[in-house]
Amino acid sequence: MRRTLVVAAAMLMAVVSLRALTPAVYSPTDALTPDEYWTIYRVLRDSGHTDEKTLFPSILLHEPDKAYVLAWKPGEPIERKADVVLYEDGHSYSASVDIAHKKLLDYQELKGEQAPFTSTEEHAFDDIIKHDPRVMAALKKRGITDLNLVYCYTSAAGYVGLKEQDGRRIGWGGCMYTDGMTHPMDREIGGIFTVEDMGAKKVLRVTDYGAVPVPANSSIYDNDGGPALPGTKPIVISQPGGPSFTIKDGEVSWQNWHFRYRFDPRTGPTIQQVSLEDNGKRRSVLYEGSLSEMFVPYQDTEETWNSHVFLDAGEYFMDTGLGMIKPLYPGIDCPDYATFLSATFYKESGQPFQRPQVACIFERTAGDPSWRHMDDDGTIYGRPGRELVFRTVAVVGNYDYIMDWRFEQEGAMKIAVGATGVLEVKPVKELKYTDEHVGDFTGKDENGKPLEFGHLIAPGLDGVDHDHFFSFRLDLDVDGTKNTFMDDKLVQYKLPVTTGRKTIWAMQPTMPATEGEAKMNIDLSHPEMWRFANTSVKNSLGYPTSFEIMPGETGVSLLAADDWPQMRGGYSAHELWVTPYDPNERYAAGVYVPGSKATDGLPTWTKKNRNIMDTDIVAWYTMGFHHVPRPEDWPQMPTMWHEVTIRPFDFYDKSPLMDLPMQP
Amino acid sequence: MRRTLVVAAAMLMAVVSLRALTPAVYSPTDALTPDEYWTIYRVLRDSGHTDEKTLFPSILLHEPDKAYVLAWKPGEPIERKADVVLYEDGHSYSASVDIAHKKLLDYQELKGEQAPFTSTEEHAFDDIIKHDPRVMAALKKRGITDLNLVYCYTSAAGYVGLKEQDGRRIGWGGCMYTDGMTHPMDREIGGIFTVEDMGAKKVLRVTDYGAVPVPANSSIYDNDGGPALPGTKPIVISQPGGPSFTIKDGEVSWQNWHFRYRFDPRTGPTIQQVSLEDNGKRRSVLYEGSLSEMFVPYQDTEETWNSHVFLDAGEYFMDTGLGMIKPLYPGIDCPDYATFLSATFYKESGQPFQRPQVACIFERTAGDPSWRHMDDDGTIYGRPGRELVFRTVAVVGNYDYIMDWRFEQEGAMKIAVGATGVLEVKPVKELKYTDEHVGDFTGKDENGKPLEFGHLIAPGLDGVDHDHFFSFRLDLDVDGTKNTFMDDKLVQYKLPVTTGRKTIWAMQPTMPATEGEAKMNIDLSHPEMWRFANTSVKNSLGYPTSFEIMPGETGVSLLAADDWPQMRGGYSAHELWVTPYDPNERYAAGVYVPGSKATDGLPTWTKKNRNIMDTDIVAWYTMGFHHVPRPEDWPQMPTMWHEVTIRPFDFYDKSPLMDLPMQP
Repeated sequence: MRRTLVVAAAMLMAVVSLRALTPAVYSPTDALTPDEYWTIYRVLRDSGHTDEKTLFPSILLHEPDKAYVLAWKPGEPIERKADVVLYEDGHSYSASVDIAHKKLLDYQELKGEQAPFTSTEEHAFDDIIKHDPRVMAALKKRGITDLNLVYCYTSAAGYVGLKEQDGRRIGWGGCMYTDGMTHPMDREIGGIFTVEDMGAKKVLRVTDYGAVPVPANSSIYDNDGGPALPGTKPIVISQPGGPSFTIKDGEVSWQNWHFRYRFDPRTGPTIQQVSLEDNGKRRSVLYEGSLSEMFVPYQDTEETWNSHVFLDAGEYFMDTGLGMIKPLYPGIDCPDYATFLSATFYKESGQPFQRPQVACIFERTAGDPSWRHMDDDGTIYGRPGRELVFRTVAVVGNYDYIMDWRFEQEGAMKIAVGATGVLEVKPVKELKYTDEHVGDFTGKDENGKPLEFGHLIAPGLDGVDHDHFFSFRLDLDVDGTKNTFMDDKLVQYKLPVTTGRKTIWAMQPTMPATEGEAKMNIDLSHPEMWRFANTSVKNSLGYPTSFEIMPGETGVSLLAADDWPQMRGGYSAHELWVTPYDPNERYAAGVYVPGSKATDGLPTWTKKNRNIMDTDIVAWYTMGFHHVPRPEDWPQMPTMWHEVTIRPFDFYDKSPLMDLPMQP
Repeated sequence: MRRTLVVAAAMLMAVVSLRALTPAVYSPTDALTPDEYWTIYRVLRDSGHTDEKTLFPSILLHEPDKAYVLAWKPGEPIERKADVVLYEDGHSYSASVDIAHKKLLDYQELKGEQAPFTSTEEHAFDDIIKHDPRVMAALKKRGITDLNLVYCYTSAAGYVGLKEQDGRRIGWGGCMYTDGMTHPMDREIGGIFTVEDMGAKKVLRVTDYGAVPVPANSSIYDNDGGPALPGTKPIVISQPGGPSFTIKDGEVSWQNWHFRYRFDPRTGPTIQQVSLEDNGKRRSVLYEGSLSEMFVPYQDTEETWNSHVFLDAGEYFMDTGLGMIKPLYPGIDCPDYATFLSATFYKESGQPFQRPQVACIFERTAGDPSWRHMDDDGTIYGRPGRELVFRTVAVVGNYDYIMDWRFEQEGAMKIAVGATGVLEVKPVKELKYTDEHVGDFTGKDENGKPLEFGHLIAPGLDGVDHDHFFSFRLDLDVDGTKNTFMDDKLVQYKLPVTTGRKTIWAMQPTMPATEGEAKMNIDLSHPEMWRFANTSVKNSLGYPTSFEIMPGETGVSLLAADDWPQMRGGYSAHELWVTPYDPNERYAAGVYVPGSKATDGLPTWTKKNRNIMDTDIVAWYTMGFHHVPRPEDWPQMPTMWHEVTIRPFDFYDKSPLMDLPMQP
């Protein structure tokens, strides 16, 4: 009896001290807490809409409208709602839950639209595929009889207009043979292609494109057991006084920057209410910025591989257990002096869980001057620079994407994506490339000129060509919500014949009036500067204050416009889109992506051709790159970085770097 | 007597110990030493070609032919020659000196070609211009009578076909009024334009474009006397065991990298004989890489400013005392744990001098993974990365360019240029910008649409629009000197109607046969991969070994092709040129740049349309950017980085990163 009491007291203390660490809601845009997830779960269960078999592919905070968020003051009650997508036996349902009032606001079965894929759903097929007689026959034809070493899978299929897709939830699959395996990524059994009806849990079709030997195992994570590269002497970095940033009630403050963040299960790190302190006043820069979609179409002549068309954020964010925000490894993914942040997510069964160290935040100095000048008299002036990095890592199957938001002292933000991880590889007959351009991965164009499909990255392993197109939704609010998109064109200007020069270039300011006019493509012969300006707020020189979106290396899709993958990932046709703010427009390829026929998303919305002048507007930046794999990308890809910079332009009256300290 | 002896002994010891520190020639491509400069000086003087008034605008190592350098073995005698350009009283002379044999090989007056400009020559005009009656009248008209506070100058004029330029060495100038000055950069007296005959030391023309008030002084280096940004806590970086690189006999070795360097007065840091160690063997990557030219055309309607068309490397490298390689400030320009290197240069009088800390070399880690992957089971693998930075800073008048060669662990090299320093600004009447697009720096195009010339960066100060086009000469020798340029085009490929996909993209390998076919422009709708391949050396997969040139953000010139500045800086029309190796082709805009009529340089050479297949070839990469100045660029520009990456592609059989240590 006594003993029980003691335990109860200890538990009470534990609860109290845990409460301080428990995720809390400080602002209407903060992430869902464990308590809130439980409320959502109970409301849905108690309303009779879920049972033991129900899957929860999507539980997302329903962000309140911007006007509400901006008007809301700390201490006031907070409106909290969640959008939920449920899946059971081939049926998808949407639900809306009022968390504060523990109330189901809406519930309906989705018709024509489908829930995101879950790991549970996909793995339900492993054995069904393997034991399909057609698959067994194909395995046997290849001399594979030890079914214990065969692993078959299915993956979400992107809609491509095949008859078998009509009205169904379809998966596409294949098998791997793990005999002799050290790592599964190169164990595909070539030529076997399966089509599954995910709802009916049935294999619809098995196509055998012909046997290809399972290649020799080449996957080695490590240095073949050899010692690490010798002679590397340590670089020791520390912050003995701690970091210079603070995190209070979910807000990060560093130098002149303030921002909030939410770890959103679908879009990953979502940066909010970013402002710059200027003469004691907080000036708004970005209401919200996050990834909006990822489009990764593979490029191969064979259906086994050109079916790999992923819209990862919308289709797969739950597939490998919240792929968008994965744990970090201190000392590898972030410096070990970084501050690590935890987050709350949910399982496919609808139950919340917490993960530690899913994000890190750290200052770093590269040893570069933020500015410097040497005068004619030889005197050198300058200041060393540093930056603040807010980092997460998304892992979507084979690929790892390091996602950085970098805050610069000059008032710029950089979004950087570092792609690493393991290539997707296809077994081919060739162990070596021959100059004659023959083999599984070579061909000819209509003029008889040679073409190469993919690239050998190890004997018998073709690194399949593919693209990455990230869409970043950037709800810039420069000095307020009403902004105008400025497209400043640099144009040749013919000088009158008074001097020796015939031409100069000048800047031609234009303001696209509608979203239809604001589908931007980069042309290096006709350079443009893209800015979000507030025409009602002027800097001391009379210019509208603005932020410029400066692309880094990027690219657009090469697929035909009427090809289904391209229609579904249609945002990849332009590097920049500008739309008026609409709280329902958050995902560049639409809300419900699996099986979608491109009826939602940027190409659809912008057909309305709405006004984008002097109103609340949103930028959608496409960061794209094409990848012809190299042997150097195997067995692990060296991290390849791409970035976009958003920097002040006429926002300040002068450089904000002049008061930096002399220490980096 | 005794005392003298002691002194002599001490001097002897000093000589001995100094000798160890004295620059030496370890390789045929090493920089000229003080002794060699003295030999050159004496040979020229003793041959009777120089006197007290002779200027030495250019004294450069004459690099031996590549075949000689590659055949040369340590210990063998070294061929050493110098190319010298002399200038006196409007006449330019070229000379060739055999240093080892102390012999003048060649000497002649240049006809039609001119020496680079020197500071001495340009400053000879300061008083002549100021006291020209037309200038005095223009000053008086502006109420400026205190000539003590007036500073007039002339600058090298780029040839633009004006009659006054024919057969003459021309300078273009203006004046500044330093009344109330804290910094001279914003003190221009608007509207005064002068033309000087540099040979005859005569002002040829004074044109008054009308008075503009000298703007209020806005140049402040510092934080208005206020304290530094508070709250910044130190980031401490150290290498307690010292750096991991070694420098021996002029060769740097770091991890798998080996390279030599020369501080060339004209091209700046010149990186040589770069190789990668692979299984105990050194494999050649780059024979030599350096800046080849810098083209900085300003864009303004008025002759006072559109005359600012600089080919900085060829015209000005001596102008401000070896602008290409200026001293560094530890803790600002480089981390204070960096290793600093000294160099030997020459004065305009022909005498050598040494400068300490003109370059730094350091390792750094950004806290980023070189690769990482998280498996489905949640295990994270990876290695932290570091890089080696070889840095110099060029200062050409107002602009400071941080020039980095960065060596990556994955076998890639990055050339990065960070532009900072002070803007060139033009006084204008307007203190503020008005939306009506009127004023000195606004206008209309032929359709009546508004144009802006420059941008107000402070009241009455127009930051003049301009471009930067760097040409980097990259003599890549991948696994040997004979290479082939591969232009791999990513092209759309229509699939037969067997699957749902209609299109994919494929790689179409092409090999431009001649330099005329290898003038490359980037088009994001038609992406290409540029590689230098060795078709005689295959990796284990059968592919020719190669290095890929991956552009970062860049651009091409917007000027008309028949405009003189564009003809002279013609390399700026393309992002990449490929030529066969010719030891005489080192400078993209020619050897003798002042007054040149574009008869030398890339556009001229490539008219020969020589073969570039399976021969020794050279890449010329144009890194270009357009600059519309912002107030945020004043009074000091935040460092803006641009880079190009040269990375292995089929050079290795697999990733070279697998054996990195776990410590960064």
